[in-house]
Amino acid sequence: MEIGPASGDKAGFFTQGRRWLNALPVKFKAKVADTARNIKKVGQDDPRRVIHSLKVGLALALVSIFYYYQPLYSNFGVTAMWAIMTVVVVFEFSVGATLGKGLNRGMATLLASALGVGAHHLANLSGHVGEPILLGSLVFLQAAISTFLRFFPKIKARYDYGLLIFILTFSLISISGFRDDEILELAHKRVLTVFVGGCACFIISIVVFPVWAGEDLHNLIALNIEKLGNFLEGFGDEYFKRTGDAESKDDKKYLEGYKSVLNSKTGEESLANFAAWEPRHGRFQFRHPWKQYLKVGTLVRECAYRIEALNGYLNADIQASSEVRSLIQEACTNMSIESGKALKELSLTIKKMVQPSSADSHIENAKSAAKNLKSLLKSGLWEDTDLLKVIPGITVASILNEVVKCTENIAESVHELASKAQFKSVERTVSPEKLHSGQPQNIKSAQMVNCSHVVVNVGESTMAASPSEISSAPKAIKHNMEV
Amino acid sequence: MEIGPASGDKAGFFTQGRRWLNALPVKFKAKVADTARNIKKVGQDDPRRVIHSLKVGLALALVSIFYYYQPLYSNFGVTAMWAIMTVVVVFEFSVGATLGKGLNRGMATLLASALGVGAHHLANLSGHVGEPILLGSLVFLQAAISTFLRFFPKIKARYDYGLLIFILTFSLISISGFRDDEILELAHKRVLTVFVGGCACFIISIVVFPVWAGEDLHNLIALNIEKLGNFLEGFGDEYFKRTGDAESKDDKKYLEGYKSVLNSKTGEESLANFAAWEPRHGRFQFRHPWKQYLKVGTLVRECAYRIEALNGYLNADIQASSEVRSLIQEACTNMSIESGKALKELSLTIKKMVQPSSADSHIENAKSAAKNLKSLLKSGLWEDTDLLKVIPGITVASILNEVVKCTENIAESVHELASKAQFKSVERTVSPEKLHSGQPQNIKSAQMVNCSHVVVNVGESTMAASPSEISSAPKAIKHNMEV
Repeated sequence: MEIGPASGDKAGFFTQGRRWLNALPVKFKAKVADTARNIKKVGQDDPRRVIHSLKVGLALALVSIFYYYQPLYSNFGVTAMWAIMTVVVVFEFSVGATLGKGLNRGMATLLASALGVGAHHLANLSGHVGEPILLGSLVFLQAAISTFLRFFPKIKARYDYGLLIFILTFSLISISGFRDDEILELAHKRVLTVFVGGCACFIISIVVFPVWAGEDLHNLIALNIEKLGNFLEGFGDEYFKRTGDAESKDDKKYLEGYKSVLNSKTGEESLANFAAWEPRHGRFQFRHPWKQYLKVGTLVRECAYRIEALNGYLNADIQASSEVRSLIQEACTNMSIESGKALKELSLTIKKMVQPSSADSHIENAKSAAKNLKSLLKSGLWEDTDLLKVIPGITVASILNEVVKCTENIAESVHELASKAQFKSVERTVSPEKLHSGQPQNIKSAQMVNCSHVVVNVGESTMAASPSEISSAPKAIKHNMEV
Repeated sequence: MEIGPASGDKAGFFTQGRRWLNALPVKFKAKVADTARNIKKVGQDDPRRVIHSLKVGLALALVSIFYYYQPLYSNFGVTAMWAIMTVVVVFEFSVGATLGKGLNRGMATLLASALGVGAHHLANLSGHVGEPILLGSLVFLQAAISTFLRFFPKIKARYDYGLLIFILTFSLISISGFRDDEILELAHKRVLTVFVGGCACFIISIVVFPVWAGEDLHNLIALNIEKLGNFLEGFGDEYFKRTGDAESKDDKKYLEGYKSVLNSKTGEESLANFAAWEPRHGRFQFRHPWKQYLKVGTLVRECAYRIEALNGYLNADIQASSEVRSLIQEACTNMSIESGKALKELSLTIKKMVQPSSADSHIENAKSAAKNLKSLLKSGLWEDTDLLKVIPGITVASILNEVVKCTENIAESVHELASKAQFKSVERTVSPEKLHSGQPQNIKSAQMVNCSHVVVNVGESTMAASPSEISSAPKAIKHNMEV
């Protein structure tokens, strides 16, 4: 009866094998589903990515007509491939990046072609033996010099790609000249096909659902300020509520939003570089003060560093005693909420491109809360308390004080941005001086702001604005109307 | 007598003109001198830049032999220009970046050439009318899909350039096939010339004064930790000395060093990406744990955020009263100096690739200083002081406490790095447990560290190490010998 176990083993093997085979499609399905979810996520995070992909395909298909269409092909021949190369390499996500790369490539090709032809003629004079030596040394020299130039920070930021193409084109043209005597035609064709390829990129990237780096930078800065505002608005409640209940740990996501601000420098700088290439678009003029956005961004990051320190006290093991908390709670919460409101106000005014108005009053409120806290600390209420229990609370208060200062700096730089970029003023009847001095309470109630639903006095603004202003910024006004 | 003034005017004009002309060379000279200074600075900041520029020139000059040398030219003809393009585009500053780009380009060219030939044959079957339509749709599809793939963060980090070249090559090969029936030869030549160009880059970048991204990352992390250490070592003195004298404002440069750490994330990540492509070099194995460096870097940045907050109190308007200062001075200064020493120790052990030893005892010292501070604050010494005067000092102490915690985290991650990367242990006689538990004072004196002159027990380490270890890392041991 040995067949039993053996056939059992066999059956087991087959069963296992079948199970594995049965599991295979499941695993495969899971893998596919996972990938599909990933693809969907990348597309949903920014649907412009899908459109961009289709745009690149379209541009390439268009340019390849150079090959298919006989009259064009008989003119350009194989050099038509430069047009294809240009499209592949130049077409970037935003209009600014595309324009920057395209102009770099175009100018560098033009200049390098001219110099390459010159080098070829120079080398021609030096006889058959001297020619390769002279050409080789020229290529070596220009490559070394151009490569070194790419290390200069200012040049790297804007003309890095141009220098690369300069090296490439100069080498190609001057060396090709050694074999091909129709070098002038080669240079001419190269410039022309690069021009055609570049134009295809420009037109498609500007006409078909354009992605403007400037607008992205504008929105990014506004979003970053809003993130800090969200944190500060929530911080007071979160910190002072926390001793009693630990339940609210999962809905703290809005408190983590500021983390992305800490490392936003590189992204902001490249967007600003791209934006500098962009023509006038939507609400943005040609010479929009993009550099001012970088200044605002730096101050926002400085504020984010303080907030990172604050966040450490949210999760710290040692918390201030409850009596200390209840004493400083009101002032601290006010400081935090008011500066948070001010930041969200500033973010909103950037988004809508109107002059910041009520943010200043929020900052004033935050400052007076800070003063209250100071006088509270001066009062004798504290003499009986254990200092060790006071420390965490006091540290939080002290950092909040720094945050208020940062908020003030941000407000100042946003004011500067608003005047440089000529943001529209919302309320012409209230002068900025009034806002700063008298009756902050009255003014505040007059321009009551709810942060998500802004009540702005659009009537006066449109009445006061000239017709050309209205027609040039229909989007901004429409936004005002909506809210 | 109207001639007088007129001639005077004339003379004045001439004098002015002459002055302007005289000034011109001076201005020009100043401009030239300024540019020269700038060039010198870029070169002196990192002399490897000059060498890199010469290397690029050399590689280009070498590859252009394809054109000059008749037997090679008769084989490759115009396609030799792909070799030149490859050199210009692939040759990057570090070996890792060059290898990454070269391998990306090579693999993408190979794959896209094969698929392009396939697409050509497929299109051939569909007749003369259908061919351009089918080819166009294929080009459109692959361009759209590949472009979309470039948005995936993981793919973007390592294979972005490969996808670009894939789009390029596939389009070129498949479209060229419409005109050129020797498409297989074209694809073959393209792959071969790209291979030759890539090899020229690899060989020159590895053989002639190689710049290793991995080594740069290693040094960058060590340098960043050292910068934080420098700040902390100087902070105590700077903060507590400052009330009396304001003279030391100019020699505070070492206190600003940490600022570059705040924004080092992008640089570290790209270096780690490049390093992953690099073969074994110097003291680094092929699978050196580069990702662990990123973890250390993140913790270092978190510490830098705390330090940024501390720095705010160095320059704050409101300072703690002098009596408060004198009370907390000793404990705070100890916390700061000891954690600074610990960081500099850690930086040094990374630089020398030895197991961190005495850093832990410094951290213990910093912790005990923090404990002292706590008990000081618990004691009744404070009851008569004005709380408002205490706040800045207490906040500084509280943030310093956070810094000590950060230092501990950094030390832990450096320990992890040391074990993952198998750093050599300096003292085999002292077990890590002992270091953490008993008699920290004795151990500290036994392995007294001066931070710039480390006394390490090299004899034991080399005795314990196997001969292969010694031969594989002569540089590291030599470093130990030197100090």
